[in-house]
Amino acid sequence: MTDPSLAGYLEAERRSVDDALAAILARLGGGVLAEAIRYAVGAGGKRLRPILCVAGYRAVAGEPGPDVFRLAAALELIHTYSLVHDDLPSMDDDPVRRGWPSTHIVHGVPAATLAGAAIIPLAVRTALEAAGALGLEEPVQARIVLDLCRAAGAAGMVGGQLLDLDAEGRPVELEGLERIHRMKTGALLAVAPRLGGLAARADDRVMTALDVYGRSLGLAFQITDDILDVTSSTAVLGKMAGRDTELEKATYPAVAGVEAAARRAREEAEVARAALEAVGVRSEELAALVVYAVERDR
Amino acid sequence: MTDPSLAGYLEAERRSVDDALAAILARLGGGVLAEAIRYAVGAGGKRLRPILCVAGYRAVAGEPGPDVFRLAAALELIHTYSLVHDDLPSMDDDPVRRGWPSTHIVHGVPAATLAGAAIIPLAVRTALEAAGALGLEEPVQARIVLDLCRAAGAAGMVGGQLLDLDAEGRPVELEGLERIHRMKTGALLAVAPRLGGLAARADDRVMTALDVYGRSLGLAFQITDDILDVTSSTAVLGKMAGRDTELEKATYPAVAGVEAAARRAREEAEVARAALEAVGVRSEELAALVVYAVERDR
Repeated sequence: MTDPSLAGYLEAERRSVDDALAAILARLGGGVLAEAIRYAVGAGGKRLRPILCVAGYRAVAGEPGPDVFRLAAALELIHTYSLVHDDLPSMDDDPVRRGWPSTHIVHGVPAATLAGAAIIPLAVRTALEAAGALGLEEPVQARIVLDLCRAAGAAGMVGGQLLDLDAEGRPVELEGLERIHRMKTGALLAVAPRLGGLAARADDRVMTALDVYGRSLGLAFQITDDILDVTSSTAVLGKMAGRDTELEKATYPAVAGVEAAARRAREEAEVARAALEAVGVRSEELAALVVYAVERDR
Repeated sequence: MTDPSLAGYLEAERRSVDDALAAILARLGGGVLAEAIRYAVGAGGKRLRPILCVAGYRAVAGEPGPDVFRLAAALELIHTYSLVHDDLPSMDDDPVRRGWPSTHIVHGVPAATLAGAAIIPLAVRTALEAAGALGLEEPVQARIVLDLCRAAGAAGMVGGQLLDLDAEGRPVELEGLERIHRMKTGALLAVAPRLGGLAARADDRVMTALDVYGRSLGLAFQITDDILDVTSSTAVLGKMAGRDTELEKATYPAVAGVEAAARRAREEAEVARAALEAVGVRSEELAALVVYAVERDR
C-alpha cells in the first residue's frame, strides 16, 4: 500500500484489535493449551476481519468504544482457529504461517488441534459478552452469536475448507470455485461488517447493503489472495508462496488466468462500493478497505 | 443394569434425545461434511449428558417439552465432537467408537477434523435457539451459552483432553488425575444438569445443588469408566477395552487400584445424592442416574 492515510488507519485499527485480543487472552490463565492459543493468536496478521467489523460500526454509529473492538476480536479468533487447523499435517500440512512456524510445529499436533477447537467457544463467549456489554437488545445479541456460528460452521467457513480440500488435484469449474471461495474465506469476511452493523443498530436497508458489501469484498479478497500466491514471494506473504500450485489447489488464476482473475476481483470491489452508495452509506473506511482487498501486495 | 424401570426410563429419554438430534441434523443439508457429522452423531451412545440435562429440568419444572430436549441435544453435539477429535490418529488413534468404525476411518482425517470443528458452532446455535424457544429471559439465555462454552473450552473439556494426552506414559498423582477427570469428562457432565436447571428457572439454592450433583456425578462416572476399561471387554464397551492401559493413560485404577477406585466413585455418588437432599430436591431421575453412573457395565 502506498497511501499513507490508509496505512495509518489500518495500523491504528490493528493495534486496537490487538489490545482487545490481549485482554481476552490474558483471562485464559496458564498451561500448554493457553500457550498454544496465545501463540496462534499472537502470531499477528492483518486483522482484516475485525477491522471490517469495526468499519461497519463506524459507518453507522461513529467512533467505537472498546467493546466494539472486543466483539470484532471474536472474528479474529475464529479466523485464527481455522488457520491452525488448516496448517495441520492432515490438512494443508503447512509449516509456516504469518512468517512464523505454524502452531503445530511449535506446540505439536495434539496441542494445535485442541487449541484450535478451544478457540471456538472462546470466540462465542467473547462475542456474546461484548454484545451484552454494548447493551444490545436480546434479539440482536442472539443474532450476533447465530450469525457468527453460521459463518464459522458447516454452511460457511468449515464447509468451504472441506470443499477446498476435496477439490485438490482435480479440475473445478469457475462456479464451483466461487462457491468454495464464498464459503471458505467469504463467509467470515462477509459476516464481519454485518456484526459491526448489528452492534451499531443499523436499519434493514443498511444491513442489506453491508451484507452485499461483505460478500463482494470477501470474494474479491480471496481472488486477490489466489493471485498473490502466484505472483508474490514467501518473504512478502508470510506464508509459503506457490503453495496453492504445489497442492493443486483450485484457484482463480489457475482456472481463469491472472488477468481475468484480477478483473473479477475489481468487479466485485465495484459491487461492494455501489451497494453502500445505493443506500447512502458514506464511509471512508469501508471504501478504503475494499480498495485494499484488491490492491494489497500481501 | 438390571432395574427394568431405570432401563425403560433411559431408553425413553434416549429416544427423545435422538429425535431432537435428528431434527437438528436434518437442517444440515447435503455434502460430505454433513454426512460426516451425521455419521458421528448417529453412531449412538448413551446420551447421558442430554439425559442429565433433561433430568435437571424435570427435578424443578416437571414434564419437558421438545425444546428442553433440543437444548439437551447441544450437550451431546459437544460430546460427539470431542470423541471425533479424540479418536484422530494424532490424538488417541482409536479406530472404533461406540461399536462402529471411528469417523476418520469412514470419512478420512480431514473431513473428521472439520466435522468435529463444525459441530461446535452447531451446538452453540442449537442451545441458543432452544433457549430462545423456551422463552427464557435474556440473562439466562446468555448464561446457558456461556456455561456451555466454558465447559467445552480450554478451562474445561478441551483443557482436560490436553492434560490427559500430556500425562500418557508418565506417572500422575491422584490429585492431578482427578483434575484431568474433572476437566476432560467432568466439565461437560457437570454443566448438563445445570443447563436443565437454568431452563427450568431453578432458584440459586437448587442451582448450587445441581452444580455439586453434576460435578460429583461427573467424577464418579469417569472413575467408573476407567474401571470398566480394565474389567470389561471391547464387545460390551463398544470401544477398545484395555486401550487406556495400552496408551499408558492416567487412570484411577492404575494409580490407586480397582478397589479404591470403586470406593471413590461410590463416595462421589453419595456426595451427589446428599447435595440434592440438602435442598429438598426429590428427583427419582437424578437419583437413578447417579446410581447408573457407578453401577453400569459399559
